[in-house]
Amino acid sequence: MHTTLKTGTAAHAKLAERLRAGDLRSLARAISLVEDDAPAAQALLSACFPHTGDALRIGITGAPGAGKSTLVDQLARTFRERQHTVGILAVDPTSPFSGGAILGDRIRMERHHADAGVYTRSMATRGAMGGLARAAADAALLMEASGRDRILIETVGVGQDEIDIVRLADITVVILVPGMGDDVQSIKAGILEIADIFVVNKCDREGADRVEKELKAMQSFASSHGSWVAPVVRTVASTGQGIDALVAAVNDFAAWLLRDGHLRERREQQWRERLIEMVRAELLRGLQAHGMKAEDLADHARRITARQEDPFATAAEMVKAITGGNAHEQAV
Amino acid sequence: MHTTLKTGTAAHAKLAERLRAGDLRSLARAISLVEDDAPAAQALLSACFPHTGDALRIGITGAPGAGKSTLVDQLARTFRERQHTVGILAVDPTSPFSGGAILGDRIRMERHHADAGVYTRSMATRGAMGGLARAAADAALLMEASGRDRILIETVGVGQDEIDIVRLADITVVILVPGMGDDVQSIKAGILEIADIFVVNKCDREGADRVEKELKAMQSFASSHGSWVAPVVRTVASTGQGIDALVAAVNDFAAWLLRDGHLRERREQQWRERLIEMVRAELLRGLQAHGMKAEDLADHARRITARQEDPFATAAEMVKAITGGNAHEQAV
Repeated sequence: MHTTLKTGTAAHAKLAERLRAGDLRSLARAISLVEDDAPAAQALLSACFPHTGDALRIGITGAPGAGKSTLVDQLARTFRERQHTVGILAVDPTSPFSGGAILGDRIRMERHHADAGVYTRSMATRGAMGGLARAAADAALLMEASGRDRILIETVGVGQDEIDIVRLADITVVILVPGMGDDVQSIKAGILEIADIFVVNKCDREGADRVEKELKAMQSFASSHGSWVAPVVRTVASTGQGIDALVAAVNDFAAWLLRDGHLRERREQQWRERLIEMVRAELLRGLQAHGMKAEDLADHARRITARQEDPFATAAEMVKAITGGNAHEQAV
Repeated sequence: MHTTLKTGTAAHAKLAERLRAGDLRSLARAISLVEDDAPAAQALLSACFPHTGDALRIGITGAPGAGKSTLVDQLARTFRERQHTVGILAVDPTSPFSGGAILGDRIRMERHHADAGVYTRSMATRGAMGGLARAAADAALLMEASGRDRILIETVGVGQDEIDIVRLADITVVILVPGMGDDVQSIKAGILEIADIFVVNKCDREGADRVEKELKAMQSFASSHGSWVAPVVRTVASTGQGIDALVAAVNDFAAWLLRDGHLRERREQQWRERLIEMVRAELLRGLQAHGMKAEDLADHARRITARQEDPFATAAEMVKAITGGNAHEQAV
């Protein structure tokens, strides 16, 4: 379908091979390709895909200041002690810049620099067309193909974007801290839906009891995930307190996932959503190939702003140009 | 293109007419149609579109607990005193439920119930396929067509979703509060990009000076919006303190927008982005019409999860099914 892919197959097969052998430079290069949404990315991902499926992908989210990075580092350290290999993907949908992310990588790499068993990568927003969740999913897949068996996907905040990203994971850990007042209440709707495990971090602060009590009160009203009720684990990430209990909770949930097809069910749901998203992104690329270039778009926008053109009719015409009037034959 | 639209044109023209005459029930029904992304929505929006463009759309965002609703209510009250008509659109991308939003509407409607000059509507996340920003933009357009000349678009949090929503507006107001510690720092990248006006609400609390100082320090590093530097306005929304100053800042910015084509430029940029988003959404609808039904999708997801099928190849085939292999002829 993509001639560029066919001609490039040998090179990508080689890159995929080196990546799968554990070469960190190849992994880094591969992630850059998927991050840039390069044409080469699809062949690479196809080559890596059959070698994935066994790692545990752990999504970690929480408000800014909740101590996510420290907690993730502690988890990585503990997994390493238990002979796992670790990939850390730190995603920041609120930042349009990668500068901060890169700085964060450096600080972290320094911390784990003697240990090739922990690979860390940051990602930030990629401009208006989005695709951060897709890039994060692909990067996690590549980390897995490179032999990492614990993938930690860390994201800032609890908006829809963050929810989309942590929902890529097999396990979702939501971090709260005492003393953030109304925040627990105001984010509860989104959080109750996605959390498999709650962490009350900085639990040496006043108010930890209240946060835990509120969480449990909320849970009693919420629909549970089948037979799993998200436990509340208390930690002080900066000292390592509670990390073993968190790892135990992660392992408990992993065991639950493997029972009664829960993991399969969850992953099938994720693939249903990802397929739709992949097709949507590809169609948009097709649109750009079909003459919706920057100048045309600017002309339309100018006439629309001046109320000389109907944006709803314009959008319909653009769809027709791509599909040959094909897209709605069954819909109308 | 849509035969359903042709047959329905008369009914929608009538609904659009009643809406434009200021009938609140018709406005409510029209917003429900765009919220549900009903086939009727396009004809309705096309009928309303020529009657828009003169209202000022003010986007208001900030962290949970920053006092957005109170501030929005105070703004609405002040605009009413100055003979404006007001539409309030409260959008919550973090909530998958509409229950809370509806409750919020009721509380607010009670507050403004004697005043048909303030129309309030809440919106929450509409499920995995998203479209909240689109629905919010369309609802704002309908409010404007119904004669409202000040549209307040309020959203929770500062993630990418919220940024997408407030970017629909002509003016973006970002609310901060003292005493939220690292939060100001951690959200600064996203915020600096979008704020036209900063509000330090609850400025009677300790730390207001520090927040203002930090904002100004950040601004000195950031790229400005041409000749406009976002002012910092201090308010206590609960008592009304500073609201007049905020309205003055809004009016100053509105005057700036009207100079040198700034407003036109900003709206053209918005339409460029919205056109892309509209086409993308429409193509996705076409996909569903082309046999990517829930069962097919579930079959693919099952085989992918079992590593019996390559998701990247599947997505490419689905694209081909819609476009007849057409989408990439110029791209490859």
